[in-house]
Amino acid sequence: MTDSAAQARPVFLGQNQYGKAENRVVRVTRDGATHHVKDLNVSVSLSGDMDEVHLSGSNANVLPTDTTKNTVYAFAKEYGIDSAEQFGVHLARHFVTSQEPIQKARIRIEEYSWERIEAAGEGEHSFARQGQETRLTQITYDGSSWEVVSGLKDLVVMNTTDSEFWGYVKDKYTTLPEAYDRILATQVSARWRFNWSDEEREMPDWEESYTQTRKALLSAFAETYSLSLQQTLFQMGARIIEQREEIDEVRFALPNKHHFLVDLKPFGLKNDNEVYLAADRPYGLIEGTILRDGAEARIPADLTNL
Amino acid sequence: MTDSAAQARPVFLGQNQYGKAENRVVRVTRDGATHHVKDLNVSVSLSGDMDEVHLSGSNANVLPTDTTKNTVYAFAKEYGIDSAEQFGVHLARHFVTSQEPIQKARIRIEEYSWERIEAAGEGEHSFARQGQETRLTQITYDGSSWEVVSGLKDLVVMNTTDSEFWGYVKDKYTTLPEAYDRILATQVSARWRFNWSDEEREMPDWEESYTQTRKALLSAFAETYSLSLQQTLFQMGARIIEQREEIDEVRFALPNKHHFLVDLKPFGLKNDNEVYLAADRPYGLIEGTILRDGAEARIPADLTNL
Amino acid sequence: MTDSAAQARPVFLGQNQYGKAENRVVRVTRDGATHHVKDLNVSVSLSGDMDEVHLSGSNANVLPTDTTKNTVYAFAKEYGIDSAEQFGVHLARHFVTSQEPIQKARIRIEEYSWERIEAAGEGEHSFARQGQETRLTQITYDGSSWEVVSGLKDLVVMNTTDSEFWGYVKDKYTTLPEAYDRILATQVSARWRFNWSDEEREMPDWEESYTQTRKALLSAFAETYSLSLQQTLFQMGARIIEQREEIDEVRFALPNKHHFLVDLKPFGLKNDNEVYLAADRPYGLIEGTILRDGAEARIPADLTNL
Amino acid sequence: MTDSAAQARPVFLGQNQYGKAENRVVRVTRDGATHHVKDLNVSVSLSGDMDEVHLSGSNANVLPTDTTKNTVYAFAKEYGIDSAEQFGVHLARHFVTSQEPIQKARIRIEEYSWERIEAAGEGEHSFARQGQETRLTQITYDGSSWEVVSGLKDLVVMNTTDSEFWGYVKDKYTTLPEAYDRILATQVSARWRFNWSDEEREMPDWEESYTQTRKALLSAFAETYSLSLQQTLFQMGARIIEQREEIDEVRFALPNKHHFLVDLKPFGLKNDNEVYLAADRPYGLIEGTILRDGAEARIPADLTNL
Repeated sequence: MTDSAAQARPVFLGQNQYGKAENRVVRVTRDGATHHVKDLNVSVSLSGDMDEVHLSGSNANVLPTDTTKNTVYAFAKEYGIDSAEQFGVHLARHFVTSQEPIQKARIRIEEYSWERIEAAGEGEHSFARQGQETRLTQITYDGSSWEVVSGLKDLVVMNTTDSEFWGYVKDKYTTLPEAYDRILATQVSARWRFNWSDEEREMPDWEESYTQTRKALLSAFAETYSLSLQQTLFQMGARIIEQREEIDEVRFALPNKHHFLVDLKPFGLKNDNEVYLAADRPYGLIEGTILRDGAEARIPADLTNL
Repeated sequence: MTDSAAQARPVFLGQNQYGKAENRVVRVTRDGATHHVKDLNVSVSLSGDMDEVHLSGSNANVLPTDTTKNTVYAFAKEYGIDSAEQFGVHLARHFVTSQEPIQKARIRIEEYSWERIEAAGEGEHSFARQGQETRLTQITYDGSSWEVVSGLKDLVVMNTTDSEFWGYVKDKYTTLPEAYDRILATQVSARWRFNWSDEEREMPDWEESYTQTRKALLSAFAETYSLSLQQTLFQMGARIIEQREEIDEVRFALPNKHHFLVDLKPFGLKNDNEVYLAADRPYGLIEGTILRDGAEARIPADLTNL
Repeated sequence: MTDSAAQARPVFLGQNQYGKAENRVVRVTRDGATHHVKDLNVSVSLSGDMDEVHLSGSNANVLPTDTTKNTVYAFAKEYGIDSAEQFGVHLARHFVTSQEPIQKARIRIEEYSWERIEAAGEGEHSFARQGQETRLTQITYDGSSWEVVSGLKDLVVMNTTDSEFWGYVKDKYTTLPEAYDRILATQVSARWRFNWSDEEREMPDWEESYTQTRKALLSAFAETYSLSLQQTLFQMGARIIEQREEIDEVRFALPNKHHFLVDLKPFGLKNDNEVYLAADRPYGLIEGTILRDGAEARIPADLTNL
Repeated sequence: MTDSAAQARPVFLGQNQYGKAENRVVRVTRDGATHHVKDLNVSVSLSGDMDEVHLSGSNANVLPTDTTKNTVYAFAKEYGIDSAEQFGVHLARHFVTSQEPIQKARIRIEEYSWERIEAAGEGEHSFARQGQETRLTQITYDGSSWEVVSGLKDLVVMNTTDSEFWGYVKDKYTTLPEAYDRILATQVSARWRFNWSDEEREMPDWEESYTQTRKALLSAFAETYSLSLQQTLFQMGARIIEQREEIDEVRFALPNKHHFLVDLKPFGLKNDNEVYLAADRPYGLIEGTILRDGAEARIPADLTNL
């Protein structure tokens, strides 16, 4: 932060960051005729001693965003990509330790998963994109401490029963009838923060952690008899905290994707929870954080930008 | 088609159609505690004796699009949804046979698939959206003959080897180096036309046909050693025609999703087909039709609108 | 089209085409300190004697799509871009006349428009993207005859009155109340075909034609007292045919973007055509062609792919 | 925040909020035959004493999101929509003051602008959607203090000259050549915070403020001779702070939309800053805050979610 008094303007520069966003890197590893694929979208954001470039336009402290892009591809070769988290750690450490003006690096990665296509013949090199959801991670490093927040988005789930909604406040604008058996559907956006922050400690097994956390989240969604989407949200978060000791904080943004029971009476038909209209907008939006006892909240409140 | 001479304008009305697009219907079927789900996006398009509504604004021949929407939801109750194709047949027949001015109906359906979430406890009513791809069908009926074209879109596939591209024409604008081992990736958009057209004949098993056609397409993609994406396209289509006797015509639009080998030499690294940049635009676009001997081409050339 | 008897498979190859899609080219022309900008998205599609590349993978007749991309950029320099239509004519002629196996070329172009930003100081080189709509053209050439179809998409328009809908068919699924004053809103997708096809004839003034055709379409939308969206569609097309002698055929796809009058009676309020809910899906979809007397219909029926 | 000890689980509930997102409301005001339109997308988010709904599923403190939707439409009638900001103030005050468990309300609004279509005849009721950009506002109220942050997104701008980039850090991954005349293009996402927070003070003229702030931002973009996008960002923010006394803080997220000069030498052509390739990904992403002297930074750092 810098006082721009030199410029005689009543303004000053606040937080700023820069980098190259959405570097699409595909890494193929060949284990004989069996190939493995990692498919990432990597965004680099750097901050530090960057006042001059804003005030005078001097780029003397600026590592070009084009260079950060090159680094992503070079590191994919040099280090391989064991996991998105591990790859982000390599990148963040590099930027902070190699350039004095850069004091902080944040690496965001989206990962797209692929499954093998069954095929006759030898060789395993054919893949189909799997699922709609995207795996996410964000690695932040300031030269001394690490923060890793992983998660996912666009995981669409639905329970066709075991959901109710009643007993709510009624004011003069309330017209909603109470529901004792409704569809509950949402498009999960989740972030979870690891308690790993010190390089001296052993890192979690990032791949196993993701697989198990996703499974915990899904099973809690399926197994909760729900009186409100908030209750389901809490159960999903609590199960993760209970089952995954490497995670201290979970944040969800859960749009309530309304499925309206269609009124078929005008056509002489009874709709016994069979035919629904899947609506687009508006939608309920339920957001919340679940924390391990004693943990501090650090994941920002808004996972989605409207 | 009508001469608008009565209006003393040198214009006349050509082909026209109308209806309600994108009716989102979710149908739940309860088999005890085990639920089944069909999730469709249904678009109705009707044509016939509709000159007056264009010329004078008289709606005397117009069944409102709102009514076509209601019909979709009512039929989901009355007939259930065994398959998108079967459901479309019910709808098309209804519109053509129940309203004299309507001479032709075309029903387009997108289907989204769901897989079960494993959960403890009794009951099977929890689902997660599966895959990125969308299953498609289009049913057309003119009162005497049926045409059913099914297909899929957004199925993303990749071979990490067994693809070459060389021996092509070089003109003064050609700079592309020949490739002897490249990634071949595409986002499959496919349509296939059934030879069922006569109501007296038994319908195909639409669900089984979809499953096997998709499998044929994927295995041909994986098993073809490719000298060009056109060759792969032909193999995919030919395999469907050979394996599925109910299908006479297949059309593909295959964007060539380029994965460029990144030049790492400036950084002192060798890139041995390991690190790729996945590019967005431009992309190659390869389109083609494969037909059964003796069959007529009826699927329009352009599956995608740019 | 080729019989694949040599392959002893009961299949043959139908219509096929290939090329490079979505080449994004920005052309700057400097008239002293005043700059002009053309911003295009160019897609090339070629067809001809291409059986071998499908059947055997031989690329001997294949001009690479990478070369078609290079040609787009080289031609932007060599010929400039007076208009998208003129630029497409240069490209189509080149591909058909320079490569014997290529018998037909189709060039599709999207154009994005920019307006100047007012600024102090000399020089005119600052621009802001204007409007949501995209200008379109498609040029097709088979070595002897030309077809030019231009148009636009994503032009969103609304009349807040002078629209009714009543007197329609009522069947057992009809529940819609008649409307005597409603909002009429649509997102115009339009294509118009020029009667220029012979190189010996002088070309239309493509820029002036676009400006005036768009104006005719908008004024007809605004000035039509509408009893149905079909009537408005016909008036828009007829006005273009009447005012633009260079155009013989117009096709529209007009989604009826429903604005529902919100029922405020439960809250003790009267809604006198003041407060509307703008709905997403489903939407009506009205499509139709208007032709000059004696002209033949050539624009395909489906401008939009669901 | 609540300790869930009662549940004997090692977890507790953190920040949470809920509401109805994306209520699309169109408000027509009739001034005789001249109509005026406000077109908004309103999202409500409420927080307060909501532990029970998460922990036990009791909705006793929950005003249904359906009710918040109804309130939006009812208020559009009762209060009209003078400006998005004013409308948001009405809504936020209502929720906080009418329901005891609700301690904080945040209203986010997107506004779409329309321009009149010129038409013959009397009456002014025809409109076309204007521009690609979306106006934004966020009103937050906790029962005592107000915060209003307005802004815009998707305003795409370009300078075709007066931009350089050189003198930057070079490390072993740097290959970028220096540029002394390049295109500078970005898609502006901006937020600005008003210093109005106390209901006793007069509110700014929200409509005039938006118009003038947008103008300041655009003119600073156009008039800055740029040595880096950071410098342009600072100038845009500083000009707003200087010209608009009602604003204390501005935050920008500026993707650097790269336009690469195409190498035409292989085709024997010279590209004298005339032909550019507009790239999609990756893109530079420059973000920063500019503050009035003495003001506190409150706008979150990340305006965009990757």
